[in-house]
Amino acid sequence: MNKFMKEALKEAKKAYDKLEVPVGAVIVKDDKIISRAHNLRELKCNCLAHAEIICINKACKKLKAWRLEGCDIYVTLEPCAMCAGAIMQSRINTVYIGAKDKKNGCVGSICNLLKENTTATTNYEYLEYDECSSILTNFFKELRNKKRNSV
Amino acid sequence: MNKFMKEALKEAKKAYDKLEVPVGAVIVKDDKIISRAHNLRELKCNCLAHAEIICINKACKKLKAWRLEGCDIYVTLEPCAMCAGAIMQSRINTVYIGAKDKKNGCVGSICNLLKENTTATTNYEYLEYDECSSILTNFFKELRNKKRNSV
Repeated sequence: MNKFMKEALKEAKKAYDKLEVPVGAVIVKDDKIISRAHNLRELKCNCLAHAEIICINKACKKLKAWRLEGCDIYVTLEPCAMCAGAIMQSRINTVYIGAKDKKNGCVGSICNLLKENTTATTNYEYLEYDECSSILTNFFKELRNKKRNSV
Repeated sequence: MNKFMKEALKEAKKAYDKLEVPVGAVIVKDDKIISRAHNLRELKCNCLAHAEIICINKACKKLKAWRLEGCDIYVTLEPCAMCAGAIMQSRINTVYIGAKDKKNGCVGSICNLLKENTTATTNYEYLEYDECSSILTNFFKELRNKKRNSV
């Protein structure tokens, strides 16, 4: 597995342990991780607290710039509209995606914002690692079991 | 002019005075403004600092909830992909839009995320106030004149 996606997956695991939907992301510049984050929507009580948004926020603060030129983002799940939009806004070079999100993904699943938006300069590549989709499958399976047992 | 769009426009004027692209937003619940914000991308050095994102962030913190159910947002300019996505994520009831953004708008201009995304529960309505588009036209005109005079 790509070493940066492995780190994004470590972030996803942190979310898993906090009972958050397990999605993780890292931003890389010059072959170094400059920010890392995982989904915290429930704990932060904030719909903006997706892994990619927290990660972009940290990277902007670190680089003291709104343009994340020369940066790539590795994310374990296909970004939603908000996150795909934020990635475009940040001018990130390439988004590497671990698993598809057929229900909410906006980089090929329900639409492709990076293609449709003619001003978008961000490229994308699917790595489609089984580990990135199975962590989500396991999470929701466990959640359903817990709910079933609690009835 | 609608009283809440008038307040969003006041926010846009604050951005104008700070040399930021003049876009403003307010979130309303039970006929009261619960958060207000304007674009601060340049000053904050952060691509996430669009009016809508700051406004949603404040509202989530105020309500201590990631779901902004029962809330409406008034924004002077058609939201970009990131902001339209964030509005969907927040479960806001209705987004009222002051002016169209033919280049970047994702609620009807380059695409319509609120229609395409079958899970979206947010409605939208265009109010198309001249004041909301002319503040932007004036801003960019002034910017061009300044640049011309500085050459």
